[in-house]
Amino acid sequence: MTTSVERWDIFEVVLAGPRAGNPFVDVQVGAVFRYKHREIAVDGFYDGDGVYRVRFMPDTVGEWSYVTSSNVAALAGQSGRFVCTEASPGNHGPVTVRDRFHFAYADGTPHVSVGTTCYAWVHQGDALEEQTLETLKHAPFNKMRMCVFPKHYTFNDNEPVYYAYERGDDGAWDFSRFNPAFWRHFEQRVGQLRELGIEADLILFHPYDRWGFADMGAEADDRYLRYIVARLAAYRNVWWSLANEFDLMENKHESDWDRFFRILQESDPYQHLRSIHNCRWFYDHAKPWVTHTSVQHSDLDRIREWRDRYGKPVVIDECKYEGNIGRVWGNISAQEMVHRFWWGTVGGAYMGHGETYLHPEDILWWSKGGVLHGESPARIAFLRKLLEQHAPEGLDPVTIPGAWFQPNDRAKKGEAYYLYYFGLAQPARYQFDLPADKQYALDLIDP
Amino acid sequence: MTTSVERWDIFEVVLAGPRAGNPFVDVQVGAVFRYKHREIAVDGFYDGDGVYRVRFMPDTVGEWSYVTSSNVAALAGQSGRFVCTEASPGNHGPVTVRDRFHFAYADGTPHVSVGTTCYAWVHQGDALEEQTLETLKHAPFNKMRMCVFPKHYTFNDNEPVYYAYERGDDGAWDFSRFNPAFWRHFEQRVGQLRELGIEADLILFHPYDRWGFADMGAEADDRYLRYIVARLAAYRNVWWSLANEFDLMENKHESDWDRFFRILQESDPYQHLRSIHNCRWFYDHAKPWVTHTSVQHSDLDRIREWRDRYGKPVVIDECKYEGNIGRVWGNISAQEMVHRFWWGTVGGAYMGHGETYLHPEDILWWSKGGVLHGESPARIAFLRKLLEQHAPEGLDPVTIPGAWFQPNDRAKKGEAYYLYYFGLAQPARYQFDLPADKQYALDLIDP
Repeated sequence: MTTSVERWDIFEVVLAGPRAGNPFVDVQVGAVFRYKHREIAVDGFYDGDGVYRVRFMPDTVGEWSYVTSSNVAALAGQSGRFVCTEASPGNHGPVTVRDRFHFAYADGTPHVSVGTTCYAWVHQGDALEEQTLETLKHAPFNKMRMCVFPKHYTFNDNEPVYYAYERGDDGAWDFSRFNPAFWRHFEQRVGQLRELGIEADLILFHPYDRWGFADMGAEADDRYLRYIVARLAAYRNVWWSLANEFDLMENKHESDWDRFFRILQESDPYQHLRSIHNCRWFYDHAKPWVTHTSVQHSDLDRIREWRDRYGKPVVIDECKYEGNIGRVWGNISAQEMVHRFWWGTVGGAYMGHGETYLHPEDILWWSKGGVLHGESPARIAFLRKLLEQHAPEGLDPVTIPGAWFQPNDRAKKGEAYYLYYFGLAQPARYQFDLPADKQYALDLIDP
Repeated sequence: MTTSVERWDIFEVVLAGPRAGNPFVDVQVGAVFRYKHREIAVDGFYDGDGVYRVRFMPDTVGEWSYVTSSNVAALAGQSGRFVCTEASPGNHGPVTVRDRFHFAYADGTPHVSVGTTCYAWVHQGDALEEQTLETLKHAPFNKMRMCVFPKHYTFNDNEPVYYAYERGDDGAWDFSRFNPAFWRHFEQRVGQLRELGIEADLILFHPYDRWGFADMGAEADDRYLRYIVARLAAYRNVWWSLANEFDLMENKHESDWDRFFRILQESDPYQHLRSIHNCRWFYDHAKPWVTHTSVQHSDLDRIREWRDRYGKPVVIDECKYEGNIGRVWGNISAQEMVHRFWWGTVGGAYMGHGETYLHPEDILWWSKGGVLHGESPARIAFLRKLLEQHAPEGLDPVTIPGAWFQPNDRAKKGEAYYLYYFGLAQPARYQFDLPADKQYALDLIDP
């Protein structure tokens, strides 16, 4: 009997090996996967209790083989075969950049990115985490921004259930020993998002930290990146976000971020999407290892500038959140949130949602998940449906050749589809400047 | 019997002189006005029909004398006396810059500038012009942006009643011969605004022209400026706005605008306020002859930057208009107009209104005046009353020392009065960062 796995699903080689010493550091394990003359080298990882795993996501239907390698004899030279079968419905493979400004799944299906944010949802315990998944089942979002490490911040005082590392005998974190229980839990949640068709935009570092994960030192940072790639890159829905608000992490410098990007580039066999999210100023998204421009900003008229400057898809991951907390970034109305989705959409970007309503137990969606209280998701669902029906390949802002003023209220897909968004404007009459040699049907849309 | 005139009102010397040739060019006339040892030289002007006038606005109560001078004997050496009496209630003198960012009248009364715009209202004929004045009587505006020359633009096809110049025998304009009928009418309207307590922000040049007034040549431009100063500077409510959208006037260059400012500086005995209004880019308002920064812009978060850069009062003369026309600059809602007034106010600027609702006879307030149809003026009246009650000396944005993020939602007058404007935010709870050693009374205001 031949093992089989569907295309863009996970094939896993499980090996037994040494428990002594520190296998996380001492043992290298990996495999080369072969399809006809093609070879793909993949790193494995230690999962505790003498168990080693090599995970692989095949991208081609047919017969594959593999052979392992290791600096430990017992883990080396193991080989096997498996069959990659057609992807089942709903499995379109990982998301990639289809052309300069837009995304598609590996099977060619356009991906209209509609994000949300629950930074620390995997650190809240099973009851709340399962409620979050239930909410997502009925929500309009196909991308989730989420941190690997727990969050320390206002409304976020609780300790996580699991930690990514073990503690040493002195009670201090041992950044050379990962905690397999944490990672099994974490990848379970990533897998559940995958089953819901939701991309997991994994935030690898962030500044809101009281444990020390924001400042582990370069050696531990690099080891962490290689470990998470080995464990999680085979999940087709993974995106790598190097940081939430990279520029608030005072102990990391531009050269560190550059190095992190290069480590992801050289380790990830599938080249999942890579980005980095700002607070005050932007990383240079034109650098070759950045696949798309991840933005925190409220002035969405500048999307055209970011498209021009970086030449990549623009994802507005944070344009403030629907809610009613006391911070400026977390108390816009549902109407304003929806306004920003439309505004950014006609700007040629992909928009992200978040929600921060005060809650008696401090369960704010933006960080902990739970249930949605706001009124914007239903309208965002409407917009997503509209885009997927009429312009799934994405919209580009209309450029008027030679004009010194470029309007920020209209986008198009070729000359077949135009979307005008009046936003704050309330024209009683309006003249649409469209190519004269064509006929258009007009829909009046209430967002 | 001694002639008397109240402080900051107009004393006029009328002289009879030659009609032959071209008195506008050939004849120079003026007077020196004396109060004790102080002397003020003032240019006069030809008013047609052999009549010459020298107008003067005395700023000091007491006995004044004058003596005329001219290159024509009949106009020279005429002398006289008059008494300047106390200003009557409501006459506070001309508006000046009181400190870096705020205005006051000459008698020290703070001036909270609340503007509106009716570009071509003096070109609409008596019936509509009188309706405009009647509307202004009950409106909240104390500054009117208005053009000297008529306007040619969408919704503005009608010919004016009067032209500033005579035509020559060939039917072409003679830019060396002013039309006194135009100027008498124009100054009548400026005087009527003065009686209503409304500053006349006179726009001296603008690009929306089909007659040739936008491109008269340097000699005519300069003569025009000297003539309007001689005729109108004695009106205490005059402000000089060099242009509406100076940067759209392709035949005038920065050196021209610099020269125009210098001509106003050297000709105007009272140093009325001077500004210049932009379309795409800004004139350098830091130049010494600019008294305040006149802005067309919609991003009012940048007011702090303009205050810092130019160090002068910021007047947002155009932040789009309440209305429903098809142009982006003329179809924001009343709510958005009011929002911008509050937003700009807590930014430390003074705001201007405009209204562009479609009208069966194309009578849009923004250009022709008439009646107001919108809902913003009543709310603007509320804001003006609030400011005049609580912070007539003007508000400055709150600066948090050392913070990289400066909030754009709060202004203060010293430590006695703070105004927070939540704008798009809807916080359920809010912590006000106020000096700890004081007690504050809190008013919750619905704008």
